[in-house]
Amino acid sequence: MSTYKAKVFVTLKPSILDPQGRTVERALSHLEHGNVSGVRVGKYIELTLHGRREDVEAQLRDITENVLSNPVMEDAHWELEGA
Amino acid sequence: MSTYKAKVFVTLKPSILDPQGRTVERALSHLEHGNVSGVRVGKYIELTLHGRREDVEAQLRDITENVLSNPVMEDAHWELEGA
Repeated sequence: MSTYKAKVFVTLKPSILDPQGRTVERALSHLEHGNVSGVRVGKYIELTLHGRREDVEAQLRDITENVLSNPVMEDAHWELEGA
Repeated sequence: MSTYKAKVFVTLKPSILDPQGRTVERALSHLEHGNVSGVRVGKYIELTLHGRREDVEAQLRDITENVLSNPVMEDAHWELEGA
């Protein structure tokens, strides 16, 4: 039984319009950052999990796919760090 | 002149309450993930920048600190990948 730190990254699928990213991009171009493109705004979630590594990995996969992201519109991936 | 992919991570400072993270944590505990704690929800922003590496790094630092995050309440860090 150990404690693990997990990071989950959730982004809109590339085919889905991202109005928030579009707005940031437009703001940046007005601020003389016209060389910035392809801005996409997603979510970054940190969690701490306690348990055996294999259980924690399975659990994190479940949480990422079923709780933290919407697989219809979003892509998600995660990283696990032993603590 | 090259194209670079940047990833920016913005999180609330540890001393700031994160009600969104708290809500996710409570939802997870009702879903039999009671071993999950310390949930913090932040932002994950992807951008593409075009220019010379040193210019792009300085620009990304400026964008991260002054546009994408609020340094009073949030911590931010970034990663740059050559494309």
